[in-house]
Amino acid sequence: MSSSTGTAFRITTFGESHGPALGVVVDGCPPRLALAREEIQRDLDRRRPGQSRLTTPRGEPDQVEILSGLSRDGRTLGTPIGLLIRNEDARGGDYREMDEMFRPSHADYTYQAKYGIREPRGGGRASARETAARVAAGAVARKLLQVDTGVEVLAWVRQVGSITSDVDPAKVRLAHVERTPVRCPDPAAALRMIECIDQVRREGDSIGGVVEVVARGVPAGWGEPVFDKLEADLAKALLSLPASKGFEIGSGFGSLGMKGSEHNDPFVMRKGRVRTKTNQSGGIQGGISNGEAIVCRVVFKPTATIRKPQVTVDVDGRRRTLAARGRHDPCVLPRAVPVVEAAVLLVLADHFLRQRAIAR
Amino acid sequence: MSSSTGTAFRITTFGESHGPALGVVVDGCPPRLALAREEIQRDLDRRRPGQSRLTTPRGEPDQVEILSGLSRDGRTLGTPIGLLIRNEDARGGDYREMDEMFRPSHADYTYQAKYGIREPRGGGRASARETAARVAAGAVARKLLQVDTGVEVLAWVRQVGSITSDVDPAKVRLAHVERTPVRCPDPAAALRMIECIDQVRREGDSIGGVVEVVARGVPAGWGEPVFDKLEADLAKALLSLPASKGFEIGSGFGSLGMKGSEHNDPFVMRKGRVRTKTNQSGGIQGGISNGEAIVCRVVFKPTATIRKPQVTVDVDGRRRTLAARGRHDPCVLPRAVPVVEAAVLLVLADHFLRQRAIAR
Amino acid sequence: MSSSTGTAFRITTFGESHGPALGVVVDGCPPRLALAREEIQRDLDRRRPGQSRLTTPRGEPDQVEILSGLSRDGRTLGTPIGLLIRNEDARGGDYREMDEMFRPSHADYTYQAKYGIREPRGGGRASARETAARVAAGAVARKLLQVDTGVEVLAWVRQVGSITSDVDPAKVRLAHVERTPVRCPDPAAALRMIECIDQVRREGDSIGGVVEVVARGVPAGWGEPVFDKLEADLAKALLSLPASKGFEIGSGFGSLGMKGSEHNDPFVMRKGRVRTKTNQSGGIQGGISNGEAIVCRVVFKPTATIRKPQVTVDVDGRRRTLAARGRHDPCVLPRAVPVVEAAVLLVLADHFLRQRAIAR
Amino acid sequence: MSSSTGTAFRITTFGESHGPALGVVVDGCPPRLALAREEIQRDLDRRRPGQSRLTTPRGEPDQVEILSGLSRDGRTLGTPIGLLIRNEDARGGDYREMDEMFRPSHADYTYQAKYGIREPRGGGRASARETAARVAAGAVARKLLQVDTGVEVLAWVRQVGSITSDVDPAKVRLAHVERTPVRCPDPAAALRMIECIDQVRREGDSIGGVVEVVARGVPAGWGEPVFDKLEADLAKALLSLPASKGFEIGSGFGSLGMKGSEHNDPFVMRKGRVRTKTNQSGGIQGGISNGEAIVCRVVFKPTATIRKPQVTVDVDGRRRTLAARGRHDPCVLPRAVPVVEAAVLLVLADHFLRQRAIAR
Repeated sequence: MSSSTGTAFRITTFGESHGPALGVVVDGCPPRLALAREEIQRDLDRRRPGQSRLTTPRGEPDQVEILSGLSRDGRTLGTPIGLLIRNEDARGGDYREMDEMFRPSHADYTYQAKYGIREPRGGGRASARETAARVAAGAVARKLLQVDTGVEVLAWVRQVGSITSDVDPAKVRLAHVERTPVRCPDPAAALRMIECIDQVRREGDSIGGVVEVVARGVPAGWGEPVFDKLEADLAKALLSLPASKGFEIGSGFGSLGMKGSEHNDPFVMRKGRVRTKTNQSGGIQGGISNGEAIVCRVVFKPTATIRKPQVTVDVDGRRRTLAARGRHDPCVLPRAVPVVEAAVLLVLADHFLRQRAIAR
Repeated sequence: MSSSTGTAFRITTFGESHGPALGVVVDGCPPRLALAREEIQRDLDRRRPGQSRLTTPRGEPDQVEILSGLSRDGRTLGTPIGLLIRNEDARGGDYREMDEMFRPSHADYTYQAKYGIREPRGGGRASARETAARVAAGAVARKLLQVDTGVEVLAWVRQVGSITSDVDPAKVRLAHVERTPVRCPDPAAALRMIECIDQVRREGDSIGGVVEVVARGVPAGWGEPVFDKLEADLAKALLSLPASKGFEIGSGFGSLGMKGSEHNDPFVMRKGRVRTKTNQSGGIQGGISNGEAIVCRVVFKPTATIRKPQVTVDVDGRRRTLAARGRHDPCVLPRAVPVVEAAVLLVLADHFLRQRAIAR
Repeated sequence: MSSSTGTAFRITTFGESHGPALGVVVDGCPPRLALAREEIQRDLDRRRPGQSRLTTPRGEPDQVEILSGLSRDGRTLGTPIGLLIRNEDARGGDYREMDEMFRPSHADYTYQAKYGIREPRGGGRASARETAARVAAGAVARKLLQVDTGVEVLAWVRQVGSITSDVDPAKVRLAHVERTPVRCPDPAAALRMIECIDQVRREGDSIGGVVEVVARGVPAGWGEPVFDKLEADLAKALLSLPASKGFEIGSGFGSLGMKGSEHNDPFVMRKGRVRTKTNQSGGIQGGISNGEAIVCRVVFKPTATIRKPQVTVDVDGRRRTLAARGRHDPCVLPRAVPVVEAAVLLVLADHFLRQRAIAR
Repeated sequence: MSSSTGTAFRITTFGESHGPALGVVVDGCPPRLALAREEIQRDLDRRRPGQSRLTTPRGEPDQVEILSGLSRDGRTLGTPIGLLIRNEDARGGDYREMDEMFRPSHADYTYQAKYGIREPRGGGRASARETAARVAAGAVARKLLQVDTGVEVLAWVRQVGSITSDVDPAKVRLAHVERTPVRCPDPAAALRMIECIDQVRREGDSIGGVVEVVARGVPAGWGEPVFDKLEADLAKALLSLPASKGFEIGSGFGSLGMKGSEHNDPFVMRKGRVRTKTNQSGGIQGGISNGEAIVCRVVFKPTATIRKPQVTVDVDGRRRTLAARGRHDPCVLPRAVPVVEAAVLLVLADHFLRQRAIAR
């Protein structure tokens, strides 16, 4: 019972990694928005497996089909948009051992404990494959925000392991991100990241990192007081991504080194608008956007699936040794980039519509 | 429209800092739970202002009144529990300047942008005073979890500015936390933290820090796949607290230094139960509790209200200088401890009931 | 867990009949709406007990206190509006017998079965006293609709027992309704209804009837496809009122005598607007308002509390005879009128805001 | 934004009448429930067009595909169940006139007013074809209730136009209902109903009627106080069905002829259980089931689509004459029977799970 998210722009997803299909229903999208299948496919292609040697070789074309919600001339009807992605390359055989063993730091054991049953092939519903549906829905949110508000959301790999990069959230562009398969717009850092990922792959190991994301053009006034603060909804959306372990906005954990007098963002007038001189707030104050760029970061752990042998127990409680044979990414970061964007886009589209409901 | 949170155990709060009262409606609490006013008051007293020289001198007794939901013999009826806390010491005069100026890194400007109106006295709805209602509701969640599941939630101050502490989440007890007004159970660190807070107070400045929280006794199986992952709901709850800037669970940002083979938590059998040897996962895997201690951390920025003069603009866009005169905390951390506990308790109570709905 | 209703304009109520207080939190009301306590009190006064010999003599002043959500100059802040009504005349003694016996066609037995506990004094949460909170919230909805849309909602008693009336929903005014204590705007029918109610009161019995309600000025386009059709939300709101047993909209059960060619509402142009010649649809087509008057009816059963002795069982399963001594209305219809209005107002305010969220 | 319904057992539907497909996501179904595609297909086959000369000749096979949520051995996984029904016989040509004209008592005009766009082929989202998705989801609810609670839901045609029938809700069986194409278990009435429907079809006209539905085996304690009363949720579910104009439970509008002393259901002990002697309450008291059969009725208007020429206006406001050529049912009642069952099943499954969440 957690397959839906959002209040006014609301999506519902379904699908297991190795079942017939993944899908999503996008509900609440305003009518008369021109929307082409290609606009959804474009984001899916960025998330698709097999894009480079940095990612899993699973051969999923991830072609999306629009099942409802569009007029014959390609405009939204205001009714729910049903999107379908068939699973094509689901090799069940690779996962036979998972029937019996709980893979460390995977969801095998917890799903079994929760439901008393689980789909072991590819992790079932717990697989990151599920995020394809979010990316498809996020593409609809992206189009809505683009057309109605000019808001632009862009993410990139900021850190892999201990390799950091130098990127200016105010200036980075999609072309910079897509220049390398690791999706880090700092070319020097990107090279070292690629080497690092190659290295851990050869070792049969894995590595984590940080994705940074910026939303530019969000007007002041989106977000809600108290429980649905904009940063709270962003934190939830990003912590609901597989393998994420932490979130920060603006100064984040970096605020620990500052005093209030250093951390506060002074207000100034610029071109007749109230602006802040610095952006420690990350574009949100009291849960509500202040018109500055919204900047946040999410940390992803090293992929749990590794080729190196690991100690674990099986479903009968016996000690076992496991060496994964399924296809997987040694580092989820490059493919996480469009997923992070989708998560942020969905939150923003929702708060955009929520704000419209109460604006007088 | 974000005054409610939770799905099965659901609360709704109301109240401005300087209005007549704060309140909360707790809906979905199971019936026949013995609940005394004192059990709620106890948690409120820990959050209450004026406890020590580390906190604001505002003199709020914060006495809670139970308006509904209890039988004459003090058991829950299954109907909504209405809780009321009157505001007593609301000195409107202190805040006259705020009518005109946007305080840096406060919500004055964003509320004005969102609503075209705002209550400047004490920050209105954006004030951390709002968290009193969460603490009251959290006390109900605490009692429910205690009686029905044995789950125990405990938070403490882990870091103030750059002063760190050494605390074992598996062993720390409430008495250790309450030993010092700064609520850090490491006595040496506590002393240094108190000094540091005293120092910034004297400077008219403020400081932030990290609160750590543990939930012990959570059985395997709480939480949901995909959007309402347990860590996602925790992240949202903690990022919805005033002044919080980041969240991490288990290894969190510390996972950046590890490879998968180091980070994965090997499964082992202990006393006939599936356990993990390490707890990088922080007690949650794939969004669902695995029976280990749930450990997470939230970072709070330095309090935005400081006595030091600051540059800002007023409602007419003129440059102004502001030196706060309202009462405030130089460091929110000590009083944030029971608030963090409440946030976690509310999430856990909700997932406890959600899991019962589907268990067959 | 059903103390909230509404999606964009959302209310949460609490309170038992004989507890300390009733209350409601109104969330989602747009900001900068002028709102006076008296506007809420006015509707409460129409629902208040003891208005005439037709209603219960319970002496509740039902004075409302606004706890939050308003600025000092009486405008909504956009934050939740907390409203409180203290219970004053709660004579617990009258209800001692109810501790032991299940009153026929009351909720005593079902609450006991559901919760394993119940508050017998005055029916606890199941008492129609709970509707005071809805009326208070409805008054806020009324003001919002009035100011922002011009929508007007008016209800009246259409039938008591078998006494019907002749009222034109297009023309009836509040003054006509309030002319008699029975709230039937047809003077001749009103007289006979009053006589009938007096008669059943003298007999120690009770009688039911039909309330009709009209919403005038609703523009075309409110409501939603599929599950939240406007008539579906109205039906839910009206069937959630104590003692209601049925609902119909437009032609309702009267459509049984017609063929499609008679029942369909032909479209015509009037003053440049698309209108319908007849209004069998009751102002809603496909779940969405069509700009005509919304007309629906709700039937209330005879009050379950009667003085006449009745056969029942007690909590130990023994056969008992019960003759109610508590204060009660022989006919709920006159006091149900403002409650029906509130239910309809809350649904309309919600759909008004929902429509604004998606309008492009 | 109303494509979802339910709180704990929650469904989300999508699809237009003449788009690629209809579908539904069932979320919250407990795990380990054996569920076969055939069990879903069986209910769909009862709703399918073209079953007899009483229904539309549109040739939709309505074959359901299960996309997710089931294990390889056919048990629910606890994850969302995605169900897909392709539209096969969508003759767009039949509906060309609807591009230009607003069909009387259809949703053409209101959708246009709401969204500024509409899908005219077959009524788009407003088509009763949408109910196929509800029936598919209802079959899952039926299986869950059957296995876990023994609850059984059965509906039948009680009245067509002015032709009434004599059916005992306590004894009627599915076989009786399915004996005739009109789905009225009273054979004499069924014959007259069939004749009547045949007659209006020949006239190019249409007729309405009443469907009655019973839920047997519901234990005492399902339902909620105040807003989500069981009868309120039933009313909403049934009024959200296309063409429904009214709802009643138990005595319903028939209570108008009774006094309280006649209408109240005396409690009696039967086989050690608290029962009621009569069932005017329709199995629900104070919003909560009392263990008696739940009996309610819904009235459907005459089908809006008729062959007889009708006056209307076109999108340019010009007076036009319309004679429908699309395929349609002269009377929706026979096919509404499984749809009514589905609506009731979905409400009951939801309240079954909601009650489990709070039972201590």
